[in-house]
Amino acid sequence: MKTLLIAATALGLTALSTPAAAQTDQSPTEAANARIVADFYDMAFNRHQPTQAARLYIGDRYIQHNPAVPNGAAAFYGYFEGFFKDHPQSRATIHRVIADGDLVALHVHSQETPDDPGRAIVDIFRLENGKIVEHFDVIQAVPRTTANGNTMFDGDKAD
Amino acid sequence: MKTLLIAATALGLTALSTPAAAQTDQSPTEAANARIVADFYDMAFNRHQPTQAARLYIGDRYIQHNPAVPNGAAAFYGYFEGFFKDHPQSRATIHRVIADGDLVALHVHSQETPDDPGRAIVDIFRLENGKIVEHFDVIQAVPRTTANGNTMFDGDKAD
Repeated sequence: MKTLLIAATALGLTALSTPAAAQTDQSPTEAANARIVADFYDMAFNRHQPTQAARLYIGDRYIQHNPAVPNGAAAFYGYFEGFFKDHPQSRATIHRVIADGDLVALHVHSQETPDDPGRAIVDIFRLENGKIVEHFDVIQAVPRTTANGNTMFDGDKAD
Repeated sequence: MKTLLIAATALGLTALSTPAAAQTDQSPTEAANARIVADFYDMAFNRHQPTQAARLYIGDRYIQHNPAVPNGAAAFYGYFEGFFKDHPQSRATIHRVIADGDLVALHVHSQETPDDPGRAIVDIFRLENGKIVEHFDVIQAVPRTTANGNTMFDGDKAD
């Protein structure tokens, strides 16, 4: 919880202190990794400074598993510098930060505009010595309606 | 690592001891939750016993965030009992188990047949008192080729 509140403060978010994410038992390294990844993500995807974020937080190598993107930090920030020029309202809301060992998973709602149903994303980052060195993700379009009355993100809302 | 090896033994998998998943620092509760979720997943999606898995591992309530599925365990096992009759070769390979507090995330490759490129999935489960009570997921089709030469799952394979 401590780390989530720190991240929430850093990100200016209100969605992190949900019941679903209220319990954590992170080691000091896991808490540090969670903070690094949350700061990286906020700088890149909300402050729209992907090049600066990469310089601060990505290691000398960056192994990419998003199937559309080449390896290396330059491919990441090169793409998103252009993307944010075309999508200045783009936002990423982090709903969950799940840190275990050298991995940090983020459960994210990405939107190009405030009205965009957007995409559900889980990003998994691997860290070495405080730097992000590897990235996996899974991305799905968010539908406008659901069969259960819940969103894809909000926790503990149904009975 | 200990938990991953236990899970690997339980699941009969060889893909879990990758460099990307080699480090963990789970509390006893996190390790127990990881084991519960891995056992549930293997019983449901590899041994094709979703009803039995739900009875053993899902709590009195089950809050569903997959947008296509109603709340409750019955909607889950009712669908998959039929699915596995139609897809007897269906398999789910767990590549990463990420446990933090009351949450366990699985990074999974789901295939309907051995030749199926399949789907990349991250399932996030929340547990209360050793029972699964809430589920989120993100699902994406796996392409046959990638821009980086890596799969969506295998860790630490590039440069």
